[in-house]
Amino acid sequence: MTPEKLQTPPKLANGTLRIVPLGGLGEIGRNMTVFELNGKLLIVDCGVLFPEEEQPGVDLILPDFSYIEDRLDDVVGLVLTHGHEDHIGAVPYLLRQKEDIPIIGSKLTLALVEAKLAEHRLNAYTLTVREGDVEQLGQFECEFVAVNHSIPDALAVFIRTEAGTVLHTGDFKMDQLPLDGRITDLRHFAKLGEEGVDIYLSDSTNAHIPGFTTPEKEIGPTIDQVISKAQRRVIVASFASHIHRVQQVLHAAAAHGRKVAFVGRSMVRNMSIAKQLGYLEIPEGILIDLKKVDSLPDHKVVLMSTGSQGEPMAALSRMANGDHQIQVGEGDTVILASSLIPGNETGVYRVINGLMKLGADVVHKDNAKVHVSGHASAGELMYTYNILKPRNAMPVHGEHRHLIANGKLAEATGVDPEQVLLCEDGSVVDLREGKARKVGQVEAGYVYVDGSSVGEITDSELKDRRTLGEEGFISVVTVVNRQTGTIISGPDIHARGVAEEDEVFKNIKPKIAKALTEAIQDNKEHTTHQLQQIVRRTIGSWVSRKLRRKPMIVPVVVET
Amino acid sequence: MTPEKLQTPPKLANGTLRIVPLGGLGEIGRNMTVFELNGKLLIVDCGVLFPEEEQPGVDLILPDFSYIEDRLDDVVGLVLTHGHEDHIGAVPYLLRQKEDIPIIGSKLTLALVEAKLAEHRLNAYTLTVREGDVEQLGQFECEFVAVNHSIPDALAVFIRTEAGTVLHTGDFKMDQLPLDGRITDLRHFAKLGEEGVDIYLSDSTNAHIPGFTTPEKEIGPTIDQVISKAQRRVIVASFASHIHRVQQVLHAAAAHGRKVAFVGRSMVRNMSIAKQLGYLEIPEGILIDLKKVDSLPDHKVVLMSTGSQGEPMAALSRMANGDHQIQVGEGDTVILASSLIPGNETGVYRVINGLMKLGADVVHKDNAKVHVSGHASAGELMYTYNILKPRNAMPVHGEHRHLIANGKLAEATGVDPEQVLLCEDGSVVDLREGKARKVGQVEAGYVYVDGSSVGEITDSELKDRRTLGEEGFISVVTVVNRQTGTIISGPDIHARGVAEEDEVFKNIKPKIAKALTEAIQDNKEHTTHQLQQIVRRTIGSWVSRKLRRKPMIVPVVVET
Repeated sequence: MTPEKLQTPPKLANGTLRIVPLGGLGEIGRNMTVFELNGKLLIVDCGVLFPEEEQPGVDLILPDFSYIEDRLDDVVGLVLTHGHEDHIGAVPYLLRQKEDIPIIGSKLTLALVEAKLAEHRLNAYTLTVREGDVEQLGQFECEFVAVNHSIPDALAVFIRTEAGTVLHTGDFKMDQLPLDGRITDLRHFAKLGEEGVDIYLSDSTNAHIPGFTTPEKEIGPTIDQVISKAQRRVIVASFASHIHRVQQVLHAAAAHGRKVAFVGRSMVRNMSIAKQLGYLEIPEGILIDLKKVDSLPDHKVVLMSTGSQGEPMAALSRMANGDHQIQVGEGDTVILASSLIPGNETGVYRVINGLMKLGADVVHKDNAKVHVSGHASAGELMYTYNILKPRNAMPVHGEHRHLIANGKLAEATGVDPEQVLLCEDGSVVDLREGKARKVGQVEAGYVYVDGSSVGEITDSELKDRRTLGEEGFISVVTVVNRQTGTIISGPDIHARGVAEEDEVFKNIKPKIAKALTEAIQDNKEHTTHQLQQIVRRTIGSWVSRKLRRKPMIVPVVVET
Repeated sequence: MTPEKLQTPPKLANGTLRIVPLGGLGEIGRNMTVFELNGKLLIVDCGVLFPEEEQPGVDLILPDFSYIEDRLDDVVGLVLTHGHEDHIGAVPYLLRQKEDIPIIGSKLTLALVEAKLAEHRLNAYTLTVREGDVEQLGQFECEFVAVNHSIPDALAVFIRTEAGTVLHTGDFKMDQLPLDGRITDLRHFAKLGEEGVDIYLSDSTNAHIPGFTTPEKEIGPTIDQVISKAQRRVIVASFASHIHRVQQVLHAAAAHGRKVAFVGRSMVRNMSIAKQLGYLEIPEGILIDLKKVDSLPDHKVVLMSTGSQGEPMAALSRMANGDHQIQVGEGDTVILASSLIPGNETGVYRVINGLMKLGADVVHKDNAKVHVSGHASAGELMYTYNILKPRNAMPVHGEHRHLIANGKLAEATGVDPEQVLLCEDGSVVDLREGKARKVGQVEAGYVYVDGSSVGEITDSELKDRRTLGEEGFISVVTVVNRQTGTIISGPDIHARGVAEEDEVFKNIKPKIAKALTEAIQDNKEHTTHQLQQIVRRTIGSWVSRKLRRKPMIVPVVVET
């Protein structure tokens, strides 16, 4: 968000509902929406975004809390729609600023966020809700609606206020045959539609995909068949939060007399939570500790692992490198039972090639039906528009192309095109008398978690990292005595990432020395900074000409 | 290739044909195969590989010529199968070592390589061939076979030697309805099959994809329909070498009364070559110079552009950024008529989001049939195995997973599994008495073109770049006087990409000074290197604890 694009919204009148998305509009991730009414705030979701190449070294990206950070005492609650990182990952960073913000969510969602908060040594003030529940959070009356997603126990939230009603879906799809029988509750949607939905915020992730998302259950037979045919070990990689996917693997393993070991820290932790809360049914005696796997014959083993996105440090990548206690070999079968998130292709195909080189058969989305998406496609979204008949539509959760696609579905199903609001992070939308309109734009930039710092790393530092990563750097250290007009020591040149051999620089060193000596002899007024600039220019033009590169140059002139 | 994996092949006996792939086996790119017989060498293709994230700042990756560089006088010819960069891009770097190696190829292939050589100020010694031609290159008799690919005028090469026969397809597919009517000549393949193919080297790129590649012509109606419905300008982006794709755009533009401007240096250059040689038919009066486009109404314009892979400096990316003379706006239509090469997703979707934000409709592979592959799928490869009945199969052109898939097709169609050779770059294969076997492994590592240097950048420098790019660096400069045991100046700390504000370091500076002073006072024997290690340890552990980062640390101790 460039400052010139910001546009201060008008002061919020009493009785108007203000909606400010602080993340998730223009990106897949860091979902967070703030609702404001009569001076009080309700927050829905508080997730992280995972960094891309352009943010090297960054661990996580958070929503920018600055819009609300002076008003945390006015927050009546933080509703979490489900337990994925892009919806709950930033909660610890918000709670560091005020620990006792009440968190409202389903049982599983709260269990996952509590585990996360414990790692950050934070306490959670929670309120567990389930579908059908109605909770009064300040002047926001929240009614929770069951939705189906790629993690169990997801909820949409319907918010009643004096200014009008809002339905926020969180992430959802409309699998008609989910493993747990808990469908997106269209009957509940119908009732809300009859009551009247003033503004509908819905998941845009798959809005550009025509038709309907395939049911999760259709993956079961593929996994079953692969396991039934496998001669030796089967390794299945999936997201550690995808409890139903793991459930299908457990069923298939049981059907073929195999034991299952969980591999990877988050897999072990999440499955333990899921089992404890009753979301995962573990067939009697099927689990085995990873350490004991070697005591079983290969054809009696299934390993359920993390690393389906080719993450270099995850279990599966280390297996592909031959760098894990599980040695993959000829005849083993690996199933990548997950999507391939754009940007991860290189890493995933590296893992696939590595596993195949070791002799494994690799089953993945290119050659078998081993994944379905967790998000509603265009066909499903149209069902919701038609049953809700919202007065205003505000697509959320997606890059710009997804939001536009969702907006078109709203129009196609009869929402007045004027009342389809294409927003971005920081857009300020006011709802009053059944009409929503954009009234301003506030700061909603990326906040980087980088090592132990939050929000301290600057775009200039990231730009420096990109330059360093592409071009390397050259530092030139010279000690001069300005009184005598001589060089005491140096120039010493240290290069990293480019021209690391010393002799590259043997011809340029005398030129730097000459330029510096002339400068201090000719003009006693040069500042140290000016002397450093002379060094920078001398070596910079030489490097650009000789090496055709533009490394970062750090000239250090020390005066004694 | 790690040195311990190398295995010196036996001395080559007279009358045995040796085959050494120097690139393209284990990667998509830098295709190059060396054939050796009785002391003479024939080379097929000499292409480049484009770098990935793990090779930051690298411009290109070449095959490693070291296996042949002492024997360039023995090279009887370099056969180029077609004009794509991954088959011809490294020719200038080979010819820099010996300019007069004869280059054999089709008319279009040679025109493209000559344009490239001219940019490198190299002359080309060429021999133009066409399908059906037989040329004696030393003891290698080469017969050329028409194949269809995503660039016109591609050739396979059949090599007759006293040791046996080889068919090398180059890249190909079997479109039965190509725009130019020039199909992969299966009748010619049949004749070669009857004569006897001892070893078959075939394109593995799509071997893992079941069925048949869609004909190029099926894209035409989509492009036609999009252009017919467009209200304002249409911008089509494609590979600059895909002459038939451009031809279809020209036809569609003509059908709807629009003029076409070429945008992007390589598009302009290639289409000029293609037109001149008769590979591109330009409807009378349809071309218009980009500078004159503004004089036409928007609905009379098609722009044919580069940048379909989201390359940041290409025309389309600059349009998406609002940073190009063509201002994309509401109602414009953009067609990405190309594949999405794995690894480019982030860049391509950034361009799509940018164009949609500007108001353009974007048509791409996710929402319309605007691309088909240039490579044979499994079904097509099986036709070739069955018609050729090769004695040995050696899959080429692909990552390991593709080579394995192609090998399975060879087995499925009756090649003796023992005679399916899964090789990698540097594998040494000998053909003798109709049997091929792997006899060794030679050096075939990546050679990086990096600025003006070729092969000078080391893996250690690339590792440094990755560290610098992820973590940044901290340099610490201190001037000490060992005689007096005192610090003359410093420590001065310069950080880039991390903790760029000076005050971060105010507490650690005295600790570094103390550690250094103690070191030079306690023990006069410390080398400068040891003093620098003391600095490194002191600041390194502090940074790791305080910032939780691991930047590169460059300690400089200057003694006066």
